[in-house]
Amino acid sequence: MADGVEVVPARRGRAIRLGAGQALRVVNTHGSQVVDTWAFIAHDMDEFLSMPHLHATLGGIFPVVGQPLHTNRRRPILLLEEDTSPGRHDTVIAACDMHRYALLGCRDYHDNCTDNLHAALAAIGLRSAVTPAPLNLWMNIPIGADGRIAWAEPLSRPGDHVTLRAALDCVVVLSCCPQDMIPINGAACTPTEVHFEVLG
Amino acid sequence: MADGVEVVPARRGRAIRLGAGQALRVVNTHGSQVVDTWAFIAHDMDEFLSMPHLHATLGGIFPVVGQPLHTNRRRPILLLEEDTSPGRHDTVIAACDMHRYALLGCRDYHDNCTDNLHAALAAIGLRSAVTPAPLNLWMNIPIGADGRIAWAEPLSRPGDHVTLRAALDCVVVLSCCPQDMIPINGAACTPTEVHFEVLG
Repeated sequence: MADGVEVVPARRGRAIRLGAGQALRVVNTHGSQVVDTWAFIAHDMDEFLSMPHLHATLGGIFPVVGQPLHTNRRRPILLLEEDTSPGRHDTVIAACDMHRYALLGCRDYHDNCTDNLHAALAAIGLRSAVTPAPLNLWMNIPIGADGRIAWAEPLSRPGDHVTLRAALDCVVVLSCCPQDMIPINGAACTPTEVHFEVLG
Repeated sequence: MADGVEVVPARRGRAIRLGAGQALRVVNTHGSQVVDTWAFIAHDMDEFLSMPHLHATLGGIFPVVGQPLHTNRRRPILLLEEDTSPGRHDTVIAACDMHRYALLGCRDYHDNCTDNLHAALAAIGLRSAVTPAPLNLWMNIPIGADGRIAWAEPLSRPGDHVTLRAALDCVVVLSCCPQDMIPINGAACTPTEVHFEVLG
């Protein structure tokens, strides 16, 4: 890996501070890993990237290259600058949590993106009172005309990446989704690491 | 109107306490009014009806008669017991707020569902630190295969109603959406009152 490339380990999360104008490249190293992604205003954790607000400002449920991503106060916080994948990212499904795995039949603790979010923030001294709905990079949730959803495998390939440029000073959190009970991270149900790089 | 029928005035909100087992009938009196709807656990405002979590538990974006509606802890809080309308309710769009109207070109204060939520809660002595994504009854947001959304008129008719039965002691908030700058409340862009009744 090149200088400056860092890892988000499989099943774990990382929080990354970005100054306005800096960009974050997220690489789907092994090709089929879903990355739950959040962004918070650095000095005000009550303002964050918000999918329900984004749907209105964007006029759609899929992020569009060249278009901003908005907060719960409808301000651009990130710009989707580049996406080498087919662009299927989920914006309607909540982060997995212990309740999700319990409903799937898991009786012990299971790693989950909600806990990853809060642990990653704590690791850099921050706290969020809420778990906003994440931008689920590469998560493939087809929605039928009847409104039914499917849990499909990612359409991305190894090395596909997205570049998110900060419009405001912010903190981005990435979580390698530890879902291994359904094939949302590929048919092998094997969560993997991803890599990221902060660009000037 | 029958005994026990109450009004949510046009452009306003109302908070209603429901004991577990009680039901709330919401009537689209004039036929094309969108009603932003929230539900909170009565003794713990941090647990609430959550659309991103509901999408996962429901396996779809449209509520289904006979199916429960879930909280951010994935517990059933309400059951959609009856729906006389075609069943097109929105679950992906945030409540309108002052930022939404500013982006639409409104320079003065505009009534909005976010403020209605917090005012309605305050009127019965409650407070929520957040504005969850609402269940937007009768709001018609078609989503194309390409993910683009449209802001369409409601498919409901005068007198259509839904009945929501409480699975847990909860507080439901209804807001008659004051959107009059786009035809989401019908072609006339005229927000109206709706009626509701608490059933045993």
